[in-house]
Amino acid sequence: MFEQLGLIGCGLMGGSFAKAMKRAGLVKRVVGYSKSPSTTERARQLGVIDVEAPSALLAVAGADIVLLAIPVAATEATLKAIKHLVTPQMLIMDVGSTKTDVVQAVRASLRDQMGSFVPAHPIAGREVAGVEHADADLYTGRQVILTPTEHTLTAQLKRAEEVWSALGCRVSHMSPESHDAAFAAVSHLPHLLAFAIMNSLTNQVHSDQLLSLAGPGFRDFTRIAASDPKMWRDVLRANREEVLAQSRLFQQALGELEKTMLENDDQKLEDLITLASLTRSNWRMGAQRGRKDDQ
Amino acid sequence: MFEQLGLIGCGLMGGSFAKAMKRAGLVKRVVGYSKSPSTTERARQLGVIDVEAPSALLAVAGADIVLLAIPVAATEATLKAIKHLVTPQMLIMDVGSTKTDVVQAVRASLRDQMGSFVPAHPIAGREVAGVEHADADLYTGRQVILTPTEHTLTAQLKRAEEVWSALGCRVSHMSPESHDAAFAAVSHLPHLLAFAIMNSLTNQVHSDQLLSLAGPGFRDFTRIAASDPKMWRDVLRANREEVLAQSRLFQQALGELEKTMLENDDQKLEDLITLASLTRSNWRMGAQRGRKDDQ
Repeated sequence: MFEQLGLIGCGLMGGSFAKAMKRAGLVKRVVGYSKSPSTTERARQLGVIDVEAPSALLAVAGADIVLLAIPVAATEATLKAIKHLVTPQMLIMDVGSTKTDVVQAVRASLRDQMGSFVPAHPIAGREVAGVEHADADLYTGRQVILTPTEHTLTAQLKRAEEVWSALGCRVSHMSPESHDAAFAAVSHLPHLLAFAIMNSLTNQVHSDQLLSLAGPGFRDFTRIAASDPKMWRDVLRANREEVLAQSRLFQQALGELEKTMLENDDQKLEDLITLASLTRSNWRMGAQRGRKDDQ
Repeated sequence: MFEQLGLIGCGLMGGSFAKAMKRAGLVKRVVGYSKSPSTTERARQLGVIDVEAPSALLAVAGADIVLLAIPVAATEATLKAIKHLVTPQMLIMDVGSTKTDVVQAVRASLRDQMGSFVPAHPIAGREVAGVEHADADLYTGRQVILTPTEHTLTAQLKRAEEVWSALGCRVSHMSPESHDAAFAAVSHLPHLLAFAIMNSLTNQVHSDQLLSLAGPGFRDFTRIAASDPKMWRDVLRANREEVLAQSRLFQQALGELEKTMLENDDQKLEDLITLASLTRSNWRMGAQRGRKDDQ
């Protein structure tokens, strides 16, 4: 049980965390700060936070748990702004989709206080942004990957595990590097590809007519293309090398399919599609248990 | 109102059409044939068809409406097998995802009887195949593209429009060529890309661990990769040139995104993602009206 959550970033991810913590009875008070004062005010009006803080530092003052729910590129500057109030008793986490860069930012900013910081990546999100969409169930049944460093205090790591578990998440550990390599493959590349196909269509003449003909398959395939541009700009930049490496592997697989089409090798083409179809048919989302919508 | 539907191909698409026609009171009797006798028997056991036909020809005997719901590559051979019973009073349609090849097959097989054939593409489907998944609502609220030729009888074209409209579809017309060019962009390429990313992941070491980390974005992005391999082998072969042309445009758009990443051009990267995000956010599926799940 925590006394006060210092929420830095009152958007979809941060707002959903605050609502979930309140509903689970894990925190008494939420003090929130967002770069845009109108967002902070809106969060209070919606009851997502209890008190508006005029700065990140003041959101941390008196907090025993702090969540950074901001674009990963803003992590270092934000931590530098709050470091004077960071104590070893405090649990600080983020929700960023990349971890190597976050750990670097923590090293550079918190230094000897970095033991309080537990890098976290909840595998959850929506293609809509903003505190209006904050949902106490956003994290329910999802996976959360913690990427502790050798400096992370075991006491804070344990508390981080307890918090996410209490919110109904399945918690696992990875190194920041293996986390970023894995999510380049299963999350960052799919977003890059979804952005690319939308732009490829938009750049064509009659793109409006093309889009008017698209059906349910296209709807689901491109859903993630509607994601927040600033967040994904930062993710793609932060994890650039891994994403580009995955893109090369993807383009090899695409080239193999195209080769069989060009060579009219029907059996090979069917075999390649069958491999993809079976793999996808047999896959179930890791965090599926207890959820109905994860087929 | 039709007396007898001759259903050739009792799978998901054909079975769903039969159920929808029955429910709408548009047909009295459904005589079905599938290449695999066990499928035909299963369709009868499930009440999707009333009578099992031992051949395509016998499924057409006595029918005033015929639906081909088979892999497009099987169209010509099937039409040759039934042509002796095709009359100008009969309405024959298909549900193929490609149209130029179907029209060629119609020309080659039916010749002077081709006026009875109305090429149709209902923009509906699921990633699961088989009569067990046949759904009377599969076509409800969807678009149906008809691609009549200069030989198509206006009387049959009008009846085709009436049938699909009565099933709750929005009917429009295109030439076979423009249909195939458009669907290469919004349907066939997305499937090719989804197959490619699944195979790219499967070919990596620790692919099981990678897949276990994938979340809701990946789930939706790859859903269509589970589609029927034989059907999609035929689609990609039949519409090869258009699909490869769309793939080149996609790879250009992907290359542009990668270039901005390599050059650390954050503003350009954000602009490109914003273009994709806004286009997708503002898009609504053409056949959305009356449906809740098409966001």
